[in-house]
Amino acid sequence: MSEKLTIILFSGDLDKTLAAFILATTASASGLETTIFFTFWGLNLLKKTYFARGKGQNIGQKLFNFMSTKKLPLSKFNMLGLGPWMMKKVMKKVGMAQLEELMATARQLGVKYVACTTSCGFMGLSRENLIPEVDDMVGAAAYLALAKDSKINLFI
Amino acid sequence: MSEKLTIILFSGDLDKTLAAFILATTASASGLETTIFFTFWGLNLLKKTYFARGKGQNIGQKLFNFMSTKKLPLSKFNMLGLGPWMMKKVMKKVGMAQLEELMATARQLGVKYVACTTSCGFMGLSRENLIPEVDDMVGAAAYLALAKDSKINLFI
Amino acid sequence: MSEKLTIILFSGDLDKTLAAFILATTASASGLETTIFFTFWGLNLLKKTYFARGKGQNIGQKLFNFMSTKKLPLSKFNMLGLGPWMMKKVMKKVGMAQLEELMATARQLGVKYVACTTSCGFMGLSRENLIPEVDDMVGAAAYLALAKDSKINLFI
Repeated sequence: MSEKLTIILFSGDLDKTLAAFILATTASASGLETTIFFTFWGLNLLKKTYFARGKGQNIGQKLFNFMSTKKLPLSKFNMLGLGPWMMKKVMKKVGMAQLEELMATARQLGVKYVACTTSCGFMGLSRENLIPEVDDMVGAAAYLALAKDSKINLFI
Repeated sequence: MSEKLTIILFSGDLDKTLAAFILATTASASGLETTIFFTFWGLNLLKKTYFARGKGQNIGQKLFNFMSTKKLPLSKFNMLGLGPWMMKKVMKKVGMAQLEELMATARQLGVKYVACTTSCGFMGLSRENLIPEVDDMVGAAAYLALAKDSKINLFI
Repeated sequence: MSEKLTIILFSGDLDKTLAAFILATTASASGLETTIFFTFWGLNLLKKTYFARGKGQNIGQKLFNFMSTKKLPLSKFNMLGLGPWMMKKVMKKVGMAQLEELMATARQLGVKYVACTTSCGFMGLSRENLIPEVDDMVGAAAYLALAKDSKINLFI
């Protein structure tokens, strides 16, 4: 049985998600069985469309989906989107992979994507609101079972 | 000896504390010995009253206690309290347990509450400022001894 | 072989970095082999000068270095620097060690400082922009190798 890295990705900030995906791709490339458990703001990365609309979403859920779009902010110096825009420009200039590329690489390398059912329930998201790459939708119990078995656990 | 989950709860944000308590209750329910080590903003959850007043608190400590009330903000989109208010409404609508209920459940399930002495010293809080549910007040050394022995360690 | 604590210090907030250094010094003092892997905003702690200037930095990199100075903000209630100022005053009053002292103690106790090469590349920082205390500059793969071998892993 190979060793495991399991990341809870709670954040939906560009800088933190980049950190998560750089760790996940590197881990998977070096033989660690890697899973990202997307919860709360982290779910934004798994949404198919900007404002994920689901049948039967109440006003509050619509609002939360409106606020948490796929346009990821920075955890610091967001400056109404200027920060992330500048960050992406710098990344391009120094030849770093953008988040979208890292996400594609992660999948090619076998990183598992798991969406938190509790957060999905809160946000009013169902399977069809999420990108097809999502492997599974599970709750905290399944996460814990995996984490117990993992050499490295991180909450990002 | 049963396996352990130990969470450092540094954050006092509603969204992050919810994540911590959902993990803690689920872990405890599934047989993991679970401890939450409350530090810095996380201490707000353990305060007996809104503005914990202690004898001999200096001006700065009074201010920090004033700023960090039990009215937990969101880590994103707090919008002067509108975010958390909306969040609680949505949680109610979809049938999720509120933080207060999760905290009660956590105690029934045997989750241990430990307050960080260093943070308490900084905030000017003593035992009588904290809710009776607090099991212990310890420092970083005691946390590390516990964490060394835990299968899962998270910093939230 | 002694047991290990490995911390990813992603944050450059005063409150969070204090938590990291209190844990690191205590761990090292109690015999844990302790490493801090500084990445992204956490790199600010390792900068030699306020606005680290490197040859060939592009405009974006200059901006990021300008924004992320060694003047660490608070994760909450920063209030244009009033929060951290107040925090330092309170710490002094209650006899807590300031960050600078904790960093010096950490080095005396043998805590290892490792800078993330990817973040340094992004920020346009090279070895000469960093304080001499930095032991090594490595990437995610080296971090993961260390983390796999650590009893306690935290992402702060």
